[in-house]
Amino acid sequence: MAATRAMSAASVHASATHGPDAAGDDLDGDTLREECGVFGIFGHPDASAVVALGLHALQHRGQEAAGIVSFDGEVFHSERRPGLVGDSFSDRGTIERLKGQAAIGHVRYSTTGGTILRNVQPLFAELAGGGLAVAHNGNLTNALSIRRELVRDGAITQSTSDTEVILHLAARSRKPRIIERFIDALQRIEGAYALVALTNKKLIGARDPQGIRPLVLGELDGRYILASETCALDIIGARFVRDIENGEIVVISDEGIESIRFAEKRPLRPCIFEYIYFARPDSVVNGKSVYAVRKNIGVELAREAGVDADIVVPVPDSGVPAALGFAQETGVPFEMGIIRNHYVGRTFIQPTQSVRELGVRMKHSANRAAVEGKRIVLVDDSLVRGTTSVKIVRMMREAGAREVHFRIASPPITYPDFYGIDTPEREKLLAATHSLEGMREYIGADSLAFLSIPGLYRAMGEERRDDACPQYTDHCFTGDYPTGLTDLAIAGPRRLALLAEAD
Amino acid sequence: MAATRAMSAASVHASATHGPDAAGDDLDGDTLREECGVFGIFGHPDASAVVALGLHALQHRGQEAAGIVSFDGEVFHSERRPGLVGDSFSDRGTIERLKGQAAIGHVRYSTTGGTILRNVQPLFAELAGGGLAVAHNGNLTNALSIRRELVRDGAITQSTSDTEVILHLAARSRKPRIIERFIDALQRIEGAYALVALTNKKLIGARDPQGIRPLVLGELDGRYILASETCALDIIGARFVRDIENGEIVVISDEGIESIRFAEKRPLRPCIFEYIYFARPDSVVNGKSVYAVRKNIGVELAREAGVDADIVVPVPDSGVPAALGFAQETGVPFEMGIIRNHYVGRTFIQPTQSVRELGVRMKHSANRAAVEGKRIVLVDDSLVRGTTSVKIVRMMREAGAREVHFRIASPPITYPDFYGIDTPEREKLLAATHSLEGMREYIGADSLAFLSIPGLYRAMGEERRDDACPQYTDHCFTGDYPTGLTDLAIAGPRRLALLAEAD
Amino acid sequence: MAATRAMSAASVHASATHGPDAAGDDLDGDTLREECGVFGIFGHPDASAVVALGLHALQHRGQEAAGIVSFDGEVFHSERRPGLVGDSFSDRGTIERLKGQAAIGHVRYSTTGGTILRNVQPLFAELAGGGLAVAHNGNLTNALSIRRELVRDGAITQSTSDTEVILHLAARSRKPRIIERFIDALQRIEGAYALVALTNKKLIGARDPQGIRPLVLGELDGRYILASETCALDIIGARFVRDIENGEIVVISDEGIESIRFAEKRPLRPCIFEYIYFARPDSVVNGKSVYAVRKNIGVELAREAGVDADIVVPVPDSGVPAALGFAQETGVPFEMGIIRNHYVGRTFIQPTQSVRELGVRMKHSANRAAVEGKRIVLVDDSLVRGTTSVKIVRMMREAGAREVHFRIASPPITYPDFYGIDTPEREKLLAATHSLEGMREYIGADSLAFLSIPGLYRAMGEERRDDACPQYTDHCFTGDYPTGLTDLAIAGPRRLALLAEAD
Amino acid sequence: MAATRAMSAASVHASATHGPDAAGDDLDGDTLREECGVFGIFGHPDASAVVALGLHALQHRGQEAAGIVSFDGEVFHSERRPGLVGDSFSDRGTIERLKGQAAIGHVRYSTTGGTILRNVQPLFAELAGGGLAVAHNGNLTNALSIRRELVRDGAITQSTSDTEVILHLAARSRKPRIIERFIDALQRIEGAYALVALTNKKLIGARDPQGIRPLVLGELDGRYILASETCALDIIGARFVRDIENGEIVVISDEGIESIRFAEKRPLRPCIFEYIYFARPDSVVNGKSVYAVRKNIGVELAREAGVDADIVVPVPDSGVPAALGFAQETGVPFEMGIIRNHYVGRTFIQPTQSVRELGVRMKHSANRAAVEGKRIVLVDDSLVRGTTSVKIVRMMREAGAREVHFRIASPPITYPDFYGIDTPEREKLLAATHSLEGMREYIGADSLAFLSIPGLYRAMGEERRDDACPQYTDHCFTGDYPTGLTDLAIAGPRRLALLAEAD
Repeated sequence: MAATRAMSAASVHASATHGPDAAGDDLDGDTLREECGVFGIFGHPDASAVVALGLHALQHRGQEAAGIVSFDGEVFHSERRPGLVGDSFSDRGTIERLKGQAAIGHVRYSTTGGTILRNVQPLFAELAGGGLAVAHNGNLTNALSIRRELVRDGAITQSTSDTEVILHLAARSRKPRIIERFIDALQRIEGAYALVALTNKKLIGARDPQGIRPLVLGELDGRYILASETCALDIIGARFVRDIENGEIVVISDEGIESIRFAEKRPLRPCIFEYIYFARPDSVVNGKSVYAVRKNIGVELAREAGVDADIVVPVPDSGVPAALGFAQETGVPFEMGIIRNHYVGRTFIQPTQSVRELGVRMKHSANRAAVEGKRIVLVDDSLVRGTTSVKIVRMMREAGAREVHFRIASPPITYPDFYGIDTPEREKLLAATHSLEGMREYIGADSLAFLSIPGLYRAMGEERRDDACPQYTDHCFTGDYPTGLTDLAIAGPRRLALLAEAD
Repeated sequence: MAATRAMSAASVHASATHGPDAAGDDLDGDTLREECGVFGIFGHPDASAVVALGLHALQHRGQEAAGIVSFDGEVFHSERRPGLVGDSFSDRGTIERLKGQAAIGHVRYSTTGGTILRNVQPLFAELAGGGLAVAHNGNLTNALSIRRELVRDGAITQSTSDTEVILHLAARSRKPRIIERFIDALQRIEGAYALVALTNKKLIGARDPQGIRPLVLGELDGRYILASETCALDIIGARFVRDIENGEIVVISDEGIESIRFAEKRPLRPCIFEYIYFARPDSVVNGKSVYAVRKNIGVELAREAGVDADIVVPVPDSGVPAALGFAQETGVPFEMGIIRNHYVGRTFIQPTQSVRELGVRMKHSANRAAVEGKRIVLVDDSLVRGTTSVKIVRMMREAGAREVHFRIASPPITYPDFYGIDTPEREKLLAATHSLEGMREYIGADSLAFLSIPGLYRAMGEERRDDACPQYTDHCFTGDYPTGLTDLAIAGPRRLALLAEAD
Repeated sequence: MAATRAMSAASVHASATHGPDAAGDDLDGDTLREECGVFGIFGHPDASAVVALGLHALQHRGQEAAGIVSFDGEVFHSERRPGLVGDSFSDRGTIERLKGQAAIGHVRYSTTGGTILRNVQPLFAELAGGGLAVAHNGNLTNALSIRRELVRDGAITQSTSDTEVILHLAARSRKPRIIERFIDALQRIEGAYALVALTNKKLIGARDPQGIRPLVLGELDGRYILASETCALDIIGARFVRDIENGEIVVISDEGIESIRFAEKRPLRPCIFEYIYFARPDSVVNGKSVYAVRKNIGVELAREAGVDADIVVPVPDSGVPAALGFAQETGVPFEMGIIRNHYVGRTFIQPTQSVRELGVRMKHSANRAAVEGKRIVLVDDSLVRGTTSVKIVRMMREAGAREVHFRIASPPITYPDFYGIDTPEREKLLAATHSLEGMREYIGADSLAFLSIPGLYRAMGEERRDDACPQYTDHCFTGDYPTGLTDLAIAGPRRLALLAEAD
Repeated sequence: MAATRAMSAASVHASATHGPDAAGDDLDGDTLREECGVFGIFGHPDASAVVALGLHALQHRGQEAAGIVSFDGEVFHSERRPGLVGDSFSDRGTIERLKGQAAIGHVRYSTTGGTILRNVQPLFAELAGGGLAVAHNGNLTNALSIRRELVRDGAITQSTSDTEVILHLAARSRKPRIIERFIDALQRIEGAYALVALTNKKLIGARDPQGIRPLVLGELDGRYILASETCALDIIGARFVRDIENGEIVVISDEGIESIRFAEKRPLRPCIFEYIYFARPDSVVNGKSVYAVRKNIGVELAREAGVDADIVVPVPDSGVPAALGFAQETGVPFEMGIIRNHYVGRTFIQPTQSVRELGVRMKHSANRAAVEGKRIVLVDDSLVRGTTSVKIVRMMREAGAREVHFRIASPPITYPDFYGIDTPEREKLLAATHSLEGMREYIGADSLAFLSIPGLYRAMGEERRDDACPQYTDHCFTGDYPTGLTDLAIAGPRRLALLAEAD
């Protein structure tokens, strides 16, 4: 997220990243990254174990670090670690230390604030009325402004993350009850957020006034669950109850569940990228199957930009459903012309020029048997910088493809995100700087087409985009941001975080 | 590999396994596992870095440990580590320690001998004429007999692996040159082997007299490469030259490449499981595209056991090509009705009964939107114990599938392997103990069908299996073992390895 | 520190302690422990390397954890780690990350707040005017009261240490300059403190109004140094300049050094335990050689409680100087009748009853050749719980000592400390619950004597203790506490820190 | 050990050393180092825990690595680790893995073969008749010759240590019983060795034909113990039974203890350096108290080289007993004029020239209060290269000493050792290249004197050295080596070990 990053870039030591997306062909950062997933459960005897499983199902939303906070009736317990959930939270000792019947957890890719352990969530603070732990998916667009005000007012910050301002705002609220303090805090912040929070009595879920980031309520044997996506309910056999509404707080306690509206009623406007790229295909987001939407996108794309070809090849894994939709609509056979290597750990260091020149294919490789001599339609979910696309087109040609027609299952990305998606700076977005023909030439395809905005809305089941009051947060394609961008005005070269700590 | 395991099971402490296959739904061991992949290069300035990349491409052949040995003109360097190649061999320091222009490497799942670092390959020995490092894919069927003889004769073993006997035999050979000693050793061993070896002058590749395990020769800018599969050539842009022949040794040195035949000429009889399950779909094994064979299998399966259904659903990832073939042959739409979670680290410990009862879906989850209300054909590569199939069928039904027809893209497995595939004991092979109807009932499907042996050979492009001289090693389906099984006769409860070391 | 521990005991997971004092015979906690050592340097090109060396020389003041914060002109860098300085801060990488020409460091045994990484010092905060890092030796006696007030006022705390309140008080001060804010903070706190602090312009040293804990100013090639003891100057060849005065702040910057008095002038009253036990014998504390004081103590002890004996045996290492004084005064030969094992890592877990019953001597062993058949005078620095003394007397008898006369080089400890020395609860102090004869009987000696209070003051070079205005902080012997004990009044069972985090 | 090191130096990566002796002032290697300590127990329910304690007491004999092998009636268990015993073998898990009632252990400084885990002892081999684990203190002087012969004969070596040849010789023996094979091996080797070995029935101890290295038999509640020194018996309260004789094997089993003589009877000739430096002062070696011998040495030194002075100052810790003897004989007061820092971890890296120039005193510091203005007699155990002495003399002068008289509690070292003491090459031994006056000038003392050979023998209780048949192994002072030095003849630049492995 270019602008925000520029605003609050902490001068931290970059620590080694790992997880699938950090590797290989992505060295150049040619992907979008979701920044977080959240999960919470209340009243379960193995709360932390269940949270660990839920986070595992949400791992696609963040592979860099994970954390769990539990409350055992007296004390909060916290474990926050770099790496995958399955590496950090699968041993008995860790789970047993996280005692208690209520717990929340978080996976993250990275946030504003850099990659240091202090920033790994859930964050915790001891308020006058008791403890408060918070896990956040999204990004605040006025965190820097608030933070400056807080520091001016004598606050000491423990992280460089935007989420911490929520804790400080709650701490400084003059309201007596923690839930009121929490609402006070929400009413000060601007941006996108799906939050799960834990107090010594309650599990809390909250979604920003437009519902940009997703949050669902589930239920398992009478205990309530909060999760970023339904796939985290499915892994443990929990039942989907409903989406948390935009501007709603749900408060789960021994007395049951209570719903509070902290922001005036307005239409839901969820982030359309959840459907295009982030959410897992088996999740149902805001009532719509992600898999079905993606297949619809493939169908619309085929209608808008069909082409005479021998096979349809997805860029795996994210391009698969749209490619299936394209293939089914056109009748052109679907083939796995690209194989993805899933065994990816840390990024390989390529020690010398001679190795770099090999043009190593860490993540994707061509399936020559499928593509040789064929006219192929390549389907990918989106086009960011284009550097991966260049490699893939070249790889297809080297494998003998006769023609390569590139089809993008989303409209051109021309604006950066500020709500929790890590987009490159605008000048690095290929579609922001090139014409369609320029892009085609850059990536070396025989033809190139994107899905149109109307096509995207049709795939979502809408007749058309309501430009006055858009049904989805789609600023990356339209520049139509759903909230104020306060921090953008005060951004500058000043370093906010003075401490560089290698945890 | 049941029988061999019984023969030489070392009394070692089981150390924690990791890597994708160790996790989640596989807790019950319901898969086949390839035991190794090998790679070597001669004359490259960054030999170790290239080997690391080659091993990364072969990671599907073994995720438990990896090792590289290089020779820098004076000294051999060795690094052997548990875990994935990308975690262990991607940092500059490690690669820089592995100096030299010639290097060989190995990935392994596990071998006879247990999971201890001493067993991680390549193994190294200092012979009278110089050093010898060996990496082995396969399994010897007379290793135990030879080992006993060696110990009786005063040899001290440094590992519990069958591969070490090759080093001892070479060490004890009275021939002057190391290559002659190596051939002496090969002429004593029985079983399956693709070997890469490194001396202080040469890179050596060897394939057993029937070519059970694969080994290919590649070339990159004039330097020769040996690898288990062509996908390891593709990752670095190397050119495929040819398969190493059965009974052939190739010796690569500064003088070029030399081919030596160490066993009499006989027909090639490669392991058919490479096509069914082990090799990567983009590899070409013995001249045949693995992807194409798998699609053919789907076609044959559809012809033999078609069924009236709404969608074809693969068990990902290995069932995808056969499912595509099945769908294309029948015209029934192909849908991703099961989603695989690729972020799998160590096995999750499920701490309490209450969590175990959740029936957690670590690796696979249902895509309800695709399967609800549908009659589905599930396509999986093979059926071993059946425990995973039970769960998957149940998961499909819980996601609303109206009918579940299970189709297996290989014949019933009724015999254990002794050549490097880790099969359970015979009494745990579902097909060895149940009738077809019994199996169907056990896994809970509406119908169940396997590919026939003739169908399998047709998919391979053969008219029929030549029972007198079978074209493939297919004993798991037929009981027709291609070599002697010397150790089987001396198997017993005696512990071969007396030392339990936790490295 | 019993009472304070009761007051603010954090419910943290005990993490494994290590370092020499944690081990062996000290399993029962029969020692006093100094809680910290501090060091800082300004204007040196290798500031962090120098701090690491200084901390190494202060290691006897705290073996549990160490930390360094440096400032490079733009950003503060921080590394805080469990274990010994020589293990954590001796590699090039760590020191190179701690860039800058000014740095401060800290070693600690443990503090109020438990053993978690968040509590390892120096602590850091970003204030409105810039960053502030603080390292503290001592303990505040109103930290809990202030902390409660801060939390009530919306502060979020990042550690459970008493030191953090200094940062919060400075953050909340309304003064414009950081040095003024820091003084504001000091004027609110009560207790014992030697502080070194670092801002983006200055190195600051401060000592509490009575100078309970030591702090010296040194100089190396024109650059100023602050350190807990002179031995930390000696290790790097720095020159001792003077002691920081009680109630004084020194501010070191590019402009030189400035002295500010933040508390009214009153007599110095340093902790007498620095001489008896804590400081290194080669240090000069408040102008007095620690070694010379300890020898004097031995001389006084010999005069007060001489005994007819064959040899004088120190309990090594702390009893050596007093035993030398005792031997020189009496003419009885000094012999190393007890050998200390210095190779002590983590505490050995004694796995079974049969091993526990061996009465293992991890740290001390008898030198039979020296003690057999002898009447011995054992000299130890102090008597806390007495459990170690019991073992040592028994060990001497088993080695053949004919008589064992125990002489303690300090008066009986009858009151707990609240200023940074970790004393057990009062009911566990042997001298608080037993008569002299009762103690003698308990430890099994033939005779037992302590140094008298007058004898102690004579050893310090004083004519007598000035009871109206004591020259030293000696409450452990007298109950005469030098400051208010605000927190003692509000102590209770309430848990202050709600978060248990295993870092 | 210069010559041997030249002979068989493995081309291994130097791994980081740690432990006290590796650090600080010893960067230049100005000490002698004992290479090992051994310990074994038979028939104890907590055998491994007892071995860990015994090794802890022997830690001064080797701080670099430690290992334990146990036998549980069926399987041998092994753990070998870098670092201190107290760090590696104090946790319950490790000890519990080392199951069984019989166990042996080893601590080592380093041996021929470099610092790699493969060389950490005990070594283990599976022989035809069962397992054999061996731990060795000492050094063989024909290991290289035997090793070459073994490799020529087809043996594969698993370490680069000289100890391994014992295993190979035993493995190749044609005798039926393991104990006979072990004797066969001993009869082939030449040099110094105290061995403890473990088979699946027996605990074995053996001492070389001249008893160069020490080995004692102890007893604890009827169970036999073998240990390098008596201090390892004392730590667990075991009783000293007797020394193992030179040329004797003791075999301990369920049937009790048996003594076998494997070499003809000849006079004992133990290494005199055990008394001067290596053994712990509380140990009794070959019937003589080490402490008493060292004090005697101080007495003899005072008689031979008394000097008019104010105080006697030991170089701690090893110089303390001789200094006490010197002080008692002369009546000059004994003072701790040098303080030793015992908190030493890894060697500090001194990152830049400016830090190096500080002349950092990591291990020793001057106690100015004791030495200022005094004429001092410095007593150190031995003089090797002299580099440390230079620093210490300078440090004493900088602390104000008026005169510095250096007295060395042993004769000049003029020849290297080949029996397990790590001496520098002869040209680096100060006494081998300088006259007495030259040495005095080099180290900067006002006077310098060594103990004479006759004085040393008097201190040992002998009337004089029997030159025809010396009572002690004293070649470092005399050049009179007690055994053949076969390998010395075949030494050369050839690299024996071709494999460089970083474990």
